[in-house]
Formats: sequence, structure tokens, C-alpha cells
Amino acid sequence: MPAFELYTDDIKQDMDSVDNYIKRALKTHQRLLSDVINQLAGSGGKRLRPLMVILSSRFGGYKRDEIIHLAAAIEILHMATLVHDDIIDDAPIRRGEPTVQSRWGKDVAVFTGDFLFSTVFSLLSKEVSFDDLYEVSRVVKQICEGEVDQYQHRYNTAVSVRSYLRRIRHKTADLFALSCVIGAKRAGCSKPIYNALENFGMDFGMVFQIIDDILDFEGQQEELGKPAGADFEEGVYTLPLIYALDTKYRLPLLDVLNKDRYDASDVEAVKAMVKAAGGIEKARSIANNFAAKAVEDIKLLPDNEHKRIMLAILNESVERRY
Amino acid sequence: MPAFELYTDDIKQDMDSVDNYIKRALKTHQRLLSDVINQLAGSGGKRLRPLMVILSSRFGGYKRDEIIHLAAAIEILHMATLVHDDIIDDAPIRRGEPTVQSRWGKDVAVFTGDFLFSTVFSLLSKEVSFDDLYEVSRVVKQICEGEVDQYQHRYNTAVSVRSYLRRIRHKTADLFALSCVIGAKRAGCSKPIYNALENFGMDFGMVFQIIDDILDFEGQQEELGKPAGADFEEGVYTLPLIYALDTKYRLPLLDVLNKDRYDASDVEAVKAMVKAAGGIEKARSIANNFAAKAVEDIKLLPDNEHKRIMLAILNESVERRY
Repeated sequence: MPAFELYTDDIKQDMDSVDNYIKRALKTHQRLLSDVINQLAGSGGKRLRPLMVILSSRFGGYKRDEIIHLAAAIEILHMATLVHDDIIDDAPIRRGEPTVQSRWGKDVAVFTGDFLFSTVFSLLSKEVSFDDLYEVSRVVKQICEGEVDQYQHRYNTAVSVRSYLRRIRHKTADLFALSCVIGAKRAGCSKPIYNALENFGMDFGMVFQIIDDILDFEGQQEELGKPAGADFEEGVYTLPLIYALDTKYRLPLLDVLNKDRYDASDVEAVKAMVKAAGGIEKARSIANNFAAKAVEDIKLLPDNEHKRIMLAILNESVERRY
Repeated sequence: MPAFELYTDDIKQDMDSVDNYIKRALKTHQRLLSDVINQLAGSGGKRLRPLMVILSSRFGGYKRDEIIHLAAAIEILHMATLVHDDIIDDAPIRRGEPTVQSRWGKDVAVFTGDFLFSTVFSLLSKEVSFDDLYEVSRVVKQICEGEVDQYQHRYNTAVSVRSYLRRIRHKTADLFALSCVIGAKRAGCSKPIYNALENFGMDFGMVFQIIDDILDFEGQQEELGKPAGADFEEGVYTLPLIYALDTKYRLPLLDVLNKDRYDASDVEAVKAMVKAAGGIEKARSIANNFAAKAVEDIKLLPDNEHKRIMLAILNESVERRY
């Protein structure tokens, strides 16, 4: 059963409130910026991070308004990283729509991201503790370090699994961990509870990114809302390829990867070899390990409807095709 | 007499402390990021914004450590905006050195800027009030709006003086105003005092940017540390040109500006016409008006050595050739 069907009415309502809050928070009198932001805020996305904030808050004595506010800030932070990420990737499409930089140019994309970042901090300045604020900025710094790491390892065919895992932890998992812990702390959860939720967020984030990277080899453009195979074309080598490079397919893979330009048949050849080498299977088993760990992380939490939603989302993330 | 020679020993010492503080605050284990940041932090610059924080704090009961911390955060904020600004401008050179994006590519530049921004907020989360934090993020949002405004008005030969002034207020003057007010508030100054300082910062910032824009027409590359005439080549029309476009030189100017590409002789022709049309003179008189207003702003402050330094810096900004 899709996780969404498990959402209780109050969770659905909270998610709608987050959407509305985001739209209100991002109002600007600058027309172009306003157009860009409306497209961004309207283009959907899974809103998983604010959902984690909201669900985590349910394990304590949450105050609805505070949590909506916090969840919105976290989603805006995520939007900011996406906009800047797309500049780097030169991505033409995201969520089935043209990216900010492909539609309005990188100039606008840079400042749209900055505008979003500063909105995050202006929202947080009204609601959270200085400790939380410090945590948020620490996570943003780690995301940046992860992104620069990724940039620096582009086209590096000797990149290790360990360095890959560190990179995606910074790039993706840290923000999920933050979403959980910030929601739980705000709701006054005890340390064992918010630690459990933080660990869940971290392991969930690892699953989420590894599956994302698998879909880059397996997925179809129509389902993904972005071209498949984009990562390795940009020199970003992810888990399935890293594993495949450690098999007898290494040399034939290098033959293709070391070309100056890839055409469509090269992309297909790499995908086929990664599959044949068992790279996808192996990456999937690592994702499953993290998923099992995530389940373990929240064992101590009460078995309520919110925990059930979290587990359903985890399950859906493992199974997803887009 | 150059303003620097008026600096008292304690001001010099504080500025050194700010430099050291910045270096410590920007430490990262990510090697490439660390290299980039060291180049940035080492390449000097005028450090006018932290100086304003420090000087303003002297009109109240400042605590040295708090003010150094705050001044460093403001300079890092400025560094972040510069890095992102250079991406937009495609600027090859700044302060006589290659820009981050020309040396390491825009990918690294985007995340270096983001890293700097998040460092600002992690520093501020330890020292300032939520009100101040809100003010800082508000100013960053305005800088972004100013930059997008500027982008949107590129190549617009009908841009008005009013819209130019609004743009530079957001892009430049707001941050100077913030530097002054945040230092003064932190030092517990009364409202009339911190308002006076905030106004001074705003008017000083206007002078600073208008002179910067004049130098884009008048200055020599060797002195500026960047190519002169870069703005209008990028379609950014500033005060001297806006005034010149309102004279009989409008049509010959449009002939050149409407070309698809400019060669060196086109750039020289525009500069010569802007000068002949009296655009520079008129822009300079506006800068002088703001400078006079800035002097007026701080009339009510005690005539001490710190006020003398502020006035000397103002004077130097009007007179500067780089």
C-alpha cells in the first residue's frame, strides 16, 4: 500500500499547511524572483523532509504552528540546495519541468538559491533555539563540503565505496537526520527518542540516495522527471558503477568512461555493463542494509500510526521506480 | 591624510583580530574548499564592513570579543556575496587575482558561496539576538532582490535614476547600514545613536557604490584590480551612463550599446561619450550629495577619534581612484 494512503487526516492537513506556509514565506515584490519561486514551489516534489519533521514531532508534545513553521523552513532549505545543485549539474529538467538555470539562466539561479537560503534563516530566527540554528547551518556546510567532494572526485575511476558513502551522507542523509531530530527536539522528546529518530533519518537518507543513484542507471526518463544516466555523464560515479568498476568489467567500462564525449550508445553500454557486472544488485543490497538499520533505529518507539507511516515511506523508498 | 593613518592602535588591533578570526572560522577539512577559502580570505580587500561594525560599537559600551565575532561574520557575508556576484558577472579578475569561478569553475564558486553563507549563520547563532539574525537574513534577501533586479534591467536603455538608486541601495548600501546598526546595537547604544549610525552606513554605502560605478568608466585596470568598463559590457547600466543617455549623446550611445558585440574601440567610445555628456560629473555630484548627507547623519555623535575615522573613510571613498 502506498505510504500516502496511510497518512492520517491530521498529517495530510499539516502537509497542506506546510505548502501554504511555504508560498506565504517566499513572497517577494521582485517580479522575476517571484515567478521563479512560484514555479519552484508549485512543482511539487515529495516533500519528504517536512514530512519527517512533522512525523517526528508526533513522538513528543508538539505545538502544531511551531512544527509547520519548522517543516516549511526545512523544505525551503532543500529547495535552495536543489536550485544550486542544478547549476552544477547543468540539469535541464527536474521533476519533469525545466530547471531554474535552464529557463532563466544561472544568474537568476544563483540568487534564487541565496534568496531561499536567507529565507530559511529568517524563518528560523523566529522560532528555533540557537542550538537548532547552529545545527542547521552545520548541515548546510556539510552539504557544501559533500558537493565540493563530489565535484573533486568527478571522473575519478578509483573512487571508493567508503568515500561515496561519506559523500552521500553529507549531501543527502544529514538533512534527513536533521529534519527528524529538529522536529523531535521541538516537541520536547527525550534524548533516547530524538536520537532514535535522528538515526532513522540518517539511515533513511542513505537508502533514499542510493536508490536515487540506482535509478540513474535503471530508471526511465518519463518516470524520473529527469534524463536517466545523467550522473556518470557528468563524471559523478555512484555506487552501482563503483561496484561494477571492481569486477572484470573494469577495463571495458574504462574504455567508455575515458572517452572525451559520450553518445547515446555509450550511455547504454555503460548501463548494460553496470547491470551485467551486478553493480545494481550489490548497490540494492547495501540500500537494504541501511533500510534494515533504519527499522532497527526506531524499534524503541511506540507502535503508533506515525511510526507505521515512517516505515511505509521507508519501504516505498526502497521500492520506488522514480 | 589616508584614513588608515588615523586608525588608533586599538582599531588596528581589532582589524587584525577580525582577520585572524575569519581564518579560524572558515576552517574546513575539505581540501579544495579550504584552498579556495584561503585564497579568498588572503586576498585582502578593504574590510570596510567589519570596520564599520567596530567603529560603530565604539559609541556604546562594547565588549571586544563580541564585536570581533560580529565584524567577522559580516565580512564573511560580504565574501559570500562577492563569490556569487562574480559567477553572474563572469568576472575573470577581482582584487587583482583570478576569481573563484574563473580559477575553479562555477561549480566550486556556487558551493563556496553557500559554505560562506552558512558559516555566517552558524557564527551568528552563537552571538547575536534573534532580531539581529532576522535583520541579517532580511538584508541578504534584499541583496538577492537587488541582484535579480540588476539582471532583469540588463541592456535596458530606459532604466531610470530612481531604479538605479533603489538597486544599489539593496545591492550595497543596506549591508553597510546593517554593519553600523548591528555594531551599535550590540554595544547597547541608544536608539538615536544607532539610528544615526545606520543612516550613515546607508549613505556611505550609496557613495561607495556610485564611486565604484564611476570608476568603471574612469579607472585604470592596474589600479582597480579588475578590468574597467566591465559593467556596461555586461549590460549593467550605471549612473554615469544613465545620465549620459538623457543627453544629446543618447542616439550615438544607443548605436554602440545596441551592437551584438563590443570591441575595444566601442568600449572606449562609450567611455568618451559618457564623459563628454557630463555623466561622470553628474554622478559625482550625486555621490557628493550622499556624502554630505552622511556627514549630517552623524552630527549628533560625540566628536571623538572614531567619528574622525569614519569621516576620513567617507572622504577617502569619495576621492578614491581604485
